[in-house]
Amino acid sequence: MDPTIKFCPTCGATISVRVPSGDRLPRHVCDACGAIHYLNPRLVVGALPVWQDRILLCRRAIEPRHGKWTLPAGFMENGETIAEAAIRETSEEANARISLGEMFTLISVPHINQVHVVFRAELLDLDFSAGDETLELALFRENEIPWHEIAFRTIAMTLRHYYADRKAGRFVFHVDDIAAP
Amino acid sequence: MDPTIKFCPTCGATISVRVPSGDRLPRHVCDACGAIHYLNPRLVVGALPVWQDRILLCRRAIEPRHGKWTLPAGFMENGETIAEAAIRETSEEANARISLGEMFTLISVPHINQVHVVFRAELLDLDFSAGDETLELALFRENEIPWHEIAFRTIAMTLRHYYADRKAGRFVFHVDDIAAP
Repeated sequence: MDPTIKFCPTCGATISVRVPSGDRLPRHVCDACGAIHYLNPRLVVGALPVWQDRILLCRRAIEPRHGKWTLPAGFMENGETIAEAAIRETSEEANARISLGEMFTLISVPHINQVHVVFRAELLDLDFSAGDETLELALFRENEIPWHEIAFRTIAMTLRHYYADRKAGRFVFHVDDIAAP
Repeated sequence: MDPTIKFCPTCGATISVRVPSGDRLPRHVCDACGAIHYLNPRLVVGALPVWQDRILLCRRAIEPRHGKWTLPAGFMENGETIAEAAIRETSEEANARISLGEMFTLISVPHINQVHVVFRAELLDLDFSAGDETLELALFRENEIPWHEIAFRTIAMTLRHYYADRKAGRFVFHVDDIAAP
């Protein structure tokens, strides 16, 4: 449960945590109007932009993992498709234009209630620049990847799948989970 | 925006819809504590359970689409993986045991802020029964599918992909979108 949920967003009355009739899990339920406020996992969507034999990484200007490297990615917004989210995040974080390829990894991260999705992509030009949430951008060959400075385990896993598939000569779609550290 | 969000879940003060500093979209922002309450798409996850040449469908006992046929599926919960969600929903709606196969379809439905994911699955036995949200269950061959009585377009699209892939002799992963009707 989320301890920051104390008041009903609909009527402003206090919230109790209890199992509603017909349900099997505790929920945030309004003591006055009875509204049930569900919490569900969020999708984090991004791209793996490739230029020749190099991958575009972003160094984060925000927490968590300020200063660490990641792929352009962020929370999917209401009203967009998952492909639109990947293109938008790449534009916002790297001011980069991509041709989106196939969905490449989908990784559940249940202890933080997230699902991370990364598409393969081709960078269309080198006219990229850091967005507000990015300190700097750089293109990395396989032997240049800063493995110990990657921001998130889902991103490191996605990069490992990329190089393994490239070596094998075929890219496949990977569905994985990551457990709590 | 969601017009039912009128009070801050954290402090109970009133909410305004405005673009927070550093953001580019209007959000629900608390007038007192400044907390920003984001809304994001939800994942609906299910299975396509196969027994020999037949598929298990559920007739819905709840709205929306009461009385229509669907695959076992529902909202992914916090704390579970996407595969666990598919197995749990199949158990809750059909009391059915499955061996989960590969992720088969992922369909964005941006006008209702949802992403629908269906896994292929093998039904392990015929000892299934309707759960609380299901009126009845049945196994359908291709020529028996009630195409005009399928509850959701994402489910009809998933069934069409299944039969097309089966005819082609290979199953692939499908990423699609569905626009507003």
